[in-house]
Formats: sequence, structure tokens, C-alpha cells
Amino acid sequence: MTGFHLNLSLLTPGHFRHAWRLPHADPLAQLDVDHFTRLAEAAEDARIDAVFLGDGPALGAGIEHAPGPGLDPLILLAHLSGATEHLGFVITSSSTYNSPYNLARRFNALDHVSKGRAAVNIVTTGTPAAAANFGLDDHPDRDTRYRRAHEFLDVVTRLWDAWEPGALVGDRTSGRYADPSRIHAIDHRGEFFSVRGPLPVPAGPQGRPVIVQAGGSEGGLKLAGDFADVVFTVAQTQAKAVAFRDEVRRRATAAGRRPDDVKVSLGVVVLVSETAAEAQRRAEELYATLPLDSLVAALNTGLGLPADAFGPDDPIALDDLPDRSGEGAFSVGFAESTRALIAERPRSPRELVRRSAGGSGHRLLIGSAPQVADDLERWFRAGAADGFTIMPADTAVDFENFTRLVVPILRERGLFRSDYTARTLRERFGLRRPGRDVAGRPALVPPAADPPGDPGRHRRSPVPERP
Amino acid sequence: MTGFHLNLSLLTPGHFRHAWRLPHADPLAQLDVDHFTRLAEAAEDARIDAVFLGDGPALGAGIEHAPGPGLDPLILLAHLSGATEHLGFVITSSSTYNSPYNLARRFNALDHVSKGRAAVNIVTTGTPAAAANFGLDDHPDRDTRYRRAHEFLDVVTRLWDAWEPGALVGDRTSGRYADPSRIHAIDHRGEFFSVRGPLPVPAGPQGRPVIVQAGGSEGGLKLAGDFADVVFTVAQTQAKAVAFRDEVRRRATAAGRRPDDVKVSLGVVVLVSETAAEAQRRAEELYATLPLDSLVAALNTGLGLPADAFGPDDPIALDDLPDRSGEGAFSVGFAESTRALIAERPRSPRELVRRSAGGSGHRLLIGSAPQVADDLERWFRAGAADGFTIMPADTAVDFENFTRLVVPILRERGLFRSDYTARTLRERFGLRRPGRDVAGRPALVPPAADPPGDPGRHRRSPVPERP
Repeated sequence: MTGFHLNLSLLTPGHFRHAWRLPHADPLAQLDVDHFTRLAEAAEDARIDAVFLGDGPALGAGIEHAPGPGLDPLILLAHLSGATEHLGFVITSSSTYNSPYNLARRFNALDHVSKGRAAVNIVTTGTPAAAANFGLDDHPDRDTRYRRAHEFLDVVTRLWDAWEPGALVGDRTSGRYADPSRIHAIDHRGEFFSVRGPLPVPAGPQGRPVIVQAGGSEGGLKLAGDFADVVFTVAQTQAKAVAFRDEVRRRATAAGRRPDDVKVSLGVVVLVSETAAEAQRRAEELYATLPLDSLVAALNTGLGLPADAFGPDDPIALDDLPDRSGEGAFSVGFAESTRALIAERPRSPRELVRRSAGGSGHRLLIGSAPQVADDLERWFRAGAADGFTIMPADTAVDFENFTRLVVPILRERGLFRSDYTARTLRERFGLRRPGRDVAGRPALVPPAADPPGDPGRHRRSPVPERP
Repeated sequence: MTGFHLNLSLLTPGHFRHAWRLPHADPLAQLDVDHFTRLAEAAEDARIDAVFLGDGPALGAGIEHAPGPGLDPLILLAHLSGATEHLGFVITSSSTYNSPYNLARRFNALDHVSKGRAAVNIVTTGTPAAAANFGLDDHPDRDTRYRRAHEFLDVVTRLWDAWEPGALVGDRTSGRYADPSRIHAIDHRGEFFSVRGPLPVPAGPQGRPVIVQAGGSEGGLKLAGDFADVVFTVAQTQAKAVAFRDEVRRRATAAGRRPDDVKVSLGVVVLVSETAAEAQRRAEELYATLPLDSLVAALNTGLGLPADAFGPDDPIALDDLPDRSGEGAFSVGFAESTRALIAERPRSPRELVRRSAGGSGHRLLIGSAPQVADDLERWFRAGAADGFTIMPADTAVDFENFTRLVVPILRERGLFRSDYTARTLRERFGLRRPGRDVAGRPALVPPAADPPGDPGRHRRSPVPERP
């Protein structure tokens, strides 16, 4: 691949969550399907790989001042798949608060109905508030969540693989609709799940929907190495991004895969206008929407400090920070990324909050279209990423500014496609079609003869089928 | 309402599950999104109220001979909502194998993105095979499933009601996005669920998505009286249908609602052609696809008899049947309906299997378009139903034959609309917008003053909020 992939986040009102206050904004856009349809159409016109939506199954903590999680992304993006033909859909789903059978089945369906455009972004959900919506008194700790996520993806991928190619026969003459000896129960019994399987229908056009993974903790990296097709990540410095991508590729190799089997998609918040001056004016306008006091307190806490440790303009140096904590309010990826910035030189909370787009932790890129294109090209050529997940600072403006102003420049430079050619999102990302040889696993009815083949690294001891 | 509503089932290949063998059929149509899009467009052209899809989260038992459950209906129909503007969507979901928070949130999202066209058909799932896909060693018994369904709908409706109208403020000047004193935790702790709530976003255009309920057992009737907007039912005789509708209306009254707050939608399998002779020829063609021996055995079992008790042509009389069993292989509604047929006169398994469309239990209506229209009109005028859920015998033929041949006749007779006028599916069904007064429940933050109002019959003792 000579160019890179581009995903665009639909987060509304934008990665500056308080952008709904700006004069041009519709404060209720987060609930407006026509708004999302326009964005999806603009993305498809620009030949973007996929649109992306983050999520958490709970009311947002700061609802008094800004929208938090919105419409269920699986439903919103399944709807948008009916209004588009080529655009991919990266949908954030929680492995902590879904059952693997339902999730496997729903993404299998999305892959069928979208004709191979489905991707699931598996997260373990860092929001403690979600636990109380699902019968848990306490939010599970990170290690437990990642152990569950690993078992979850093991179950989900085996469910996706459980129909052998050709198991659906459809022979009118004999009346044989399917060959049960080629449809396999998975008979999983693990720490978190017991799932017999299989799904009611065979896999869709991608075999497996694309698996995206977004955690930078040790558990997240293991998940990435074992299962991810795409790792969505955060980095404030190029050096950190390069090192992270190298690490992800090492993890894939260690898991018996090829380095190119995992693509790194780097998140970057983009604020782009016709001119650099106009972009800077808009940045000041967005900064003015930020509730600085509460964001500075959250930053202190996220770094493991008391909430009032540093005022907005007190520089924080690396020596001021406590040892790394695995369970801070920030995710590991975000905390590491902020530490890396402070390691370069002492920085004030005001600067850090502004640079991290109001607290999201992602790098903020402000400029004219050529400046934005230059920056992405530089990071790509440095080996920092295989592509980017563009997070509009103010979605009402930056989503279409990016597709209209930046994409044509990238195209001229040969860094981005001018048309869709691949049949599926998986092929568009340059990913192989993974899948285990399922023939070695117990069939629903015994096959006529023992089939040959390597049962693959995920084979488990057969578990007796339940009555 | 002078006319009746019409829902159309998308079940593919049809309610004769073996219709995939017919020469004109595409054996893989069940996986073909273009097939479903064509059906949805034909339904919308005919001004049908809603399309409907049944479901069960497990591989179909007879997969060797015919398709069973197909693509996840929530995803398929969310996709189709992107290709239509007015058509409603009745989506079967299991209260046994979903979590109420996720389900409430997903149908809330579907209501937003479809602009008020979402309906959930809550079932408890009668397929024992599903249990093993969700970590259960045994399928819960019917009483347990219905107790769970009742608590499930209590939680789901309270989540849908938890944002007061106007809670979303969006005031740019003050920076107040929402008023937390008007967004209510539900703080539910019950036998099956602990759910704090609320959802991240307010209700969609319908307030609550339409609730459909399909069980005819005592638990199902209680669910219908307390929660259902529409009851989907089965009846082989007009007398039984009239009695059932009266009972449902009584249950609504007993629960403090108005009889017209619940509509009965009667399922009927329709095989319709240009002429009665052609319809009869097609019926013989479909009968020939049925695997008679296994269906006769299933009928015997479903009636509580040994599988080989009656051969295909041995008449069964009412005296031959054991006392009613609550946990037979058939659902209560289907078993009752078949008993009612036998009560009229002794009937052979062959006749019963044919009449019940290969075992589904629904009444089979075969004829020319005027004959079908006459029949529906007669049942409607007798008070048997407020409308019908039309289940095509062979979906590849009967879905479009119904919309093209039968609907225009119903329209001429003033029994069916000639255009969509209502804004939402709920309004189209002539249903009020229910909702509890949520102002009396504990708010996320205390409101400035105690709001007035009747907390409603579903009020529970306040439960302390969890940390």
C-alpha cells in the first residue's frame, strides 16, 4: 500500500463536546438522523474507508453541560448502511456489557446486509456508571475486563467461523438445504461464558467482520496481537506512535500472524479551514466553550494527582507525576500519551487541555488544508500509522471541511484513493481473510469420514455436548 | 377506525419453510439483503403498516431440510429503515436472552433513526436450543420466562420514560445542555434485573416504540394487559379469535387501560393468485414440499401424544387428546388453536399439517384475491381482529401477490388506507402515546422544588442510589 486509510468519526457535536454552543451548531444534532446521513454521504463521496462511532452504555457524566454517548451506534450505523453503498462502518461495542452470541450474530447480520462493510471496535468500557445499568454493583477492574474481552473475541470469532464454506447446500432435487456435518458447535466453556453455537446462518462477505481494538494497556495489546485487524490508538508524539506501531506488529508476530495483518489507525482531532488564520480563529472560539476548571481538575485526577494539584497555568513537569497507575480515570493510552507530552517539557494544564481537545487525549491538529495534509503525510512516512481516524474538532464544520478540502490534496499526492475498488472493507484495508480450519472440531452430526486439516491454534479440548 | 391495519411478514422462504425447493425460488434468499429491500419497497408502495420478522437466537432444528431463523432481525430491519420512509418495523426480540438496558437503548435508537417507525415484538423464546448459547444449562420454564418478560418490559418502559419532555435544554447562552433534575434514574432492583438507568438520550418520536406481544399463555395475557400495544395471535376459528380479542380487551381494562389501547393482529398464512384454480395448484405444489412424516410426528408430540400415536390419515378426535399441557412442544396459542379445529370435528394429521402451513399453527387462507379480501373482511367485521399479520405461504410469490392483488380490493372497499398520513407507526395504529409521569421519581440531582403529579401505577419504593 502506498497510501493510507482514512476513517472519520461521526461523534457529534465533535471532539470538542461543548461545540454545540457555537452559533452555527444545532444543539440537538446528536439525535438527528438526517445530520448523520449527510455526513455518511459526504464521507462516501470522498471515498473515505469507514465512518467510526465511539460509545459507552450510560448517561454521560457531564450531561448538564454537553452531550455524552448518543444513539446506540449499532442501530444508527446499520441504518446508515441502508443509505450508502461502499462506506465502511466501525461500531464501538462493549465486551463487558454484551453477550458474545448476540454480538456475533448482529455483526454477522450487518456484514450480510451491508455486503461486507462491517467492523466492530471492541472496547471493555472504562465508564464505571455502565455497571449499574447491567446488574453489577461494581465496575469490573481492567484486568478482569480484558480477560473477559479476550474470551469474548475467542467465542465471537469461532462463532463467525463455525459454518464451513459450502455448508449451505440448497439442493432442490434432494431437498438437502444444509449439511449439518459442516456446521460446527463451538461448545465453549470458559471463565466468563458458556456458548454452544453455532449461529443460525453462515458468515457474510468478509468471512469475519473487521475487528478493531482500541486499548493501549497490556491486556489491550494482547487482544490486539491475538485478534485485532486494526488498532485504533492515541499518541501526542510521533516517536510514541512509531514505537507503539512497532510494538503492535511485534505482538502480531508473537501470536503467529504477520506484521501486516494488523493495521494501526491513529486518532487525530482535526480542525481545518480554508486558511490557517481562519483555523486559528475557530480554535479560539472552541477553546472558549471549554469549562476549564472542571477539565483541569479531571486532568490532575487522570494523571494520578489531587484534583487541585495544578492550576490552569502552573507548569507540570515529569518529576511532579506519581508512578504510573493502571487504574486512573484516563485510559492507559491517554495517560501515557499525556505523560509523553510532559516528558518533552513542562506544560500547563491549560495547554494540555487545549491540545487534547477538551480532555479526550487525542492530538489536536489545527491548520489550513495543505498544513493538515502535510502533517498526516509526515506522520505516515515516519511509520507512525497505517492510516488515521480523523476526529472532527467541530463536526458540523470539520467533517465536511476535511472531505472537501484535505482529501483532494491527499489524492493529488497519491496518498489516498480516487475510487472504491475493493469488494469489502476488509479488502480495502489490505487485510487477509482470517479464519480457522473448523473441520477438525466436533460437528453437529458426525461427518462421514474424519476430515484432514490443522485444527488451528484456537483448538480446545472437545467438551461433551449438552443434552 | 373503519378499516384495519396490515402487517406483512418477511419470513423467507415463507411460512411453508420448504418453499425454497420450488423452481422459482432462490434457495439463499434468506441471506440476500436485496430480496428484503424489494419486499420492503413493495410493502411501502402498498401503504402497508409494517413489516414483521419472527426470530429465535439459535440454529434451526431442521436445518438439513429447510432454513430456520435467519439474519438478526434488529440489524436487518434497521438497515431497511434506511431504504424506506413510512414503513413500520415489527422486530421480534427475546426478553429471555437480552438485557433490558441494551434492548431499551437499541429500540430508542431505532425510533430516532426511523423517525417513529419502531416496534418491538417481545417473545420469551420457546426454543430450548437457545439456552446453551447464553450460558444456561437448561431452558427456563414458561412461568419463569414470563415473570422475567414482565419485569423486563417494566424496566424497558421506565427507561424509555426516564427523560421528561424538555429535559434536553440546549441553551447556548447559559451553556446548559440538559437539566439533570428532569432526567430520572429508574433504580430498579427486582427478581431478575438491577438497572439504574437512565438511557443516554431522550425518547424518540413515538415516546415509546410500539410494544407487540405474541404469547397466548396466562403469562402472555398478563403481559398483554399490562404492556402491549398490539397482540399478535393465532386462531384457526373465528369464534376463538373473537373470544381471544374480547379477553385481551378485558385484560387491558383490568390493568387500568382502555380496551382500544390494545389492538389484536391476527396471523394468517396467505396463498393468493390471480385465480382460485391457480392458487389451488400452487397449494398442491407447496404441500408436496412438506416432509410429512416428521411433521405428523411433531404434531402428535405438540398435542401431548406419543410421536407415532396417529398416522397421516388417522382422524384425531377431541376425546383422543390428553389434558392440556402447559409445556408442550407447541406454544400455548398454537396448541389451543389446533384443539379448537379438532373440537369442530375429527381431523387427520395430514389435514391439520396442511392447514397449519407445515406446522406453524397459523390458519391457511388459499384463494383468488377477491376470495382473500372477502375472508379478511368477514373476520374483521365479526370482531375477530383489529388487523392482520399476513404471513406469505411462499414469500417469493405471495408477498407481492398480496400487495399487488389484494390490497387494491381492500382499498376499494374502504377497509384500507390509500396513503400514509400519520406521523408515526403508533399514530397509524390508532394508539395513544403512553408514558408515566416520571416527575415523582428520584431525580439524578434533586429538583429545585418538589414537582407535583401522580407517580403512576408503576411507581416503586425509592431504592438508594448506588455509589
